[in-house]
Amino acid sequence: MSRAPSVEALIEGVLAGDRALLAQAITRVESTRPQHRADARALLTALLPHAGEAQRVGISGVPGVGKSTFIEAFGLQRLADGHRVAVLAVDPTSERTGGSILGDKTRMAQLAADPRAFIRPSPSSGSLGGVGRRTREAILLCEAAGFDLVIVETVGVGQSETLVAQMVDVFVVLMLPGAGDELQGIKRGIMEVADLIAVNKADGDRVHAAALARRQIQSALHTLSPASPHWSPQALTCSAVEGTGLDEVWRAILAHRAALEPVGERAARRAQQQLDWFEQLVDEGLRYWARAQPRFEAQYREARQAVASGQLTPGLAVDSLLEALLD
Amino acid sequence: MSRAPSVEALIEGVLAGDRALLAQAITRVESTRPQHRADARALLTALLPHAGEAQRVGISGVPGVGKSTFIEAFGLQRLADGHRVAVLAVDPTSERTGGSILGDKTRMAQLAADPRAFIRPSPSSGSLGGVGRRTREAILLCEAAGFDLVIVETVGVGQSETLVAQMVDVFVVLMLPGAGDELQGIKRGIMEVADLIAVNKADGDRVHAAALARRQIQSALHTLSPASPHWSPQALTCSAVEGTGLDEVWRAILAHRAALEPVGERAARRAQQQLDWFEQLVDEGLRYWARAQPRFEAQYREARQAVASGQLTPGLAVDSLLEALLD
Repeated sequence: MSRAPSVEALIEGVLAGDRALLAQAITRVESTRPQHRADARALLTALLPHAGEAQRVGISGVPGVGKSTFIEAFGLQRLADGHRVAVLAVDPTSERTGGSILGDKTRMAQLAADPRAFIRPSPSSGSLGGVGRRTREAILLCEAAGFDLVIVETVGVGQSETLVAQMVDVFVVLMLPGAGDELQGIKRGIMEVADLIAVNKADGDRVHAAALARRQIQSALHTLSPASPHWSPQALTCSAVEGTGLDEVWRAILAHRAALEPVGERAARRAQQQLDWFEQLVDEGLRYWARAQPRFEAQYREARQAVASGQLTPGLAVDSLLEALLD
Repeated sequence: MSRAPSVEALIEGVLAGDRALLAQAITRVESTRPQHRADARALLTALLPHAGEAQRVGISGVPGVGKSTFIEAFGLQRLADGHRVAVLAVDPTSERTGGSILGDKTRMAQLAADPRAFIRPSPSSGSLGGVGRRTREAILLCEAAGFDLVIVETVGVGQSETLVAQMVDVFVVLMLPGAGDELQGIKRGIMEVADLIAVNKADGDRVHAAALARRQIQSALHTLSPASPHWSPQALTCSAVEGTGLDEVWRAILAHRAALEPVGERAARRAQQQLDWFEQLVDEGLRYWARAQPRFEAQYREARQAVASGQLTPGLAVDSLLEALLD
């Protein structure tokens, strides 16, 4: 193996749109090794002025909804439109299962093979918070490398949707046509973050069910106050395997941008995302520091146990814990 | 004025169900004066074993929905059933406006006058987090004083609903009948936390509109996956001014409890609430400590500004900030 490239080589490679060096730059930024942290800082500082130009699209949906097929077909159409497409993944389950939603590159073989596309598997370790940080920084690197459409994919599990919604411009949720009359339940929380809902697999004998599901979802969406005065979340149908409806999803994404950008809401959303992320990292950093102090961990466990068993109120338990730590 | 009662007198008074001493005990627990913090600790430690027996009900709704009228009529019916009713308020707007949703005791004059009821205005200062802590501890004191129904009221503003949902057993949202065909939008986020939705003002010429609104809301609720496998959120109608439908709301609250308690979900929800609250207080405590360190505040503002203006990624900004703080 050749030596690892220098920071300068990585910066130059990313700015030239070199996919192999982009991949290595992301790896360097993801690394927790102390000598790599300085590299990461230099990389990000140099590349930040070149980032920010992409359309950032979050895509979520339960396993089986056809996310890979959708992203591959959708991504290939956008390549044909002249875009350069990067796909990143946030997968809180990858640590637990040892697998990753994007671990198998053959999953999107055609897209991965195209030189105008870049596919990056999920960071394979660390907390969801850590994954969030690394994915956010990977978005910036992809943008600096000239990818003008960055898709962040996540499974519909736990907090990952909220996390991804906080790093993209528009959040798309894929759903399945209901079986028969019974509509699948929409996960609570999705309504909070979905700008678009696309009912996938609207093909063959599922066309009618998909149309019905779309209407029911649109009706539920209408019952809710939209998060923005400038955009009412929309429900669409599509078939990733047949390639139908994907242009409509793209047009809706562009309509969303056209509605929010002129009134300053897109920029405001990004600025707020950055500040929220900053605050979250301050909390995480202070926690990390606290846990590194002698005895904190033991006392923390003891206090938590006293709360769980009802012996202390959380307020009293935390008072004692912090007094001991901060004296 | 007489001297402030001793901690022993407060404990005895609370356990005897004395409303005046309960009010003073809550004031003592809310106080941030250092000498009162020790009293608060002694009070809570002594009273905690006597708390936990109440049904804790959160009630929310936008201004004008008729929360006060609802709570008074509902509370009086529960007194007639043999319950003792305490009403607490979480009002994030009270600081800003100088008023409080419960500042005016004449608002629920009949309920307030009944010796079996206890009405406590919103804590009048401090962050929402601080209000959350004080209200949670006030719930415990009310329970120790023998109130077996504790209603926590909040306005439908910002994060207050999520905060209150995290301290009660069941969360009820009041809504208005739509005007004509157009249904009011349900605030996103409400679906996350509502166990029951009651369309109030189902009286006079609004009976039909209320029934229609109820059906639309119920339909939207059906489209969502319930938060619990044991409870599907329900929509009802009621009229607080006519006193109709309130028994149905109470029966639904009891049905919710009957569904969750035997399977252990009510206890699990409470335990999780305690642990979440504990974790949140650890973060808040560490922040509080950090802000008390020399130079932190200035460096924090500087770092935040660099993030807001796009000069630094949040990750880089926080790295520098914490390095300076924790060296």
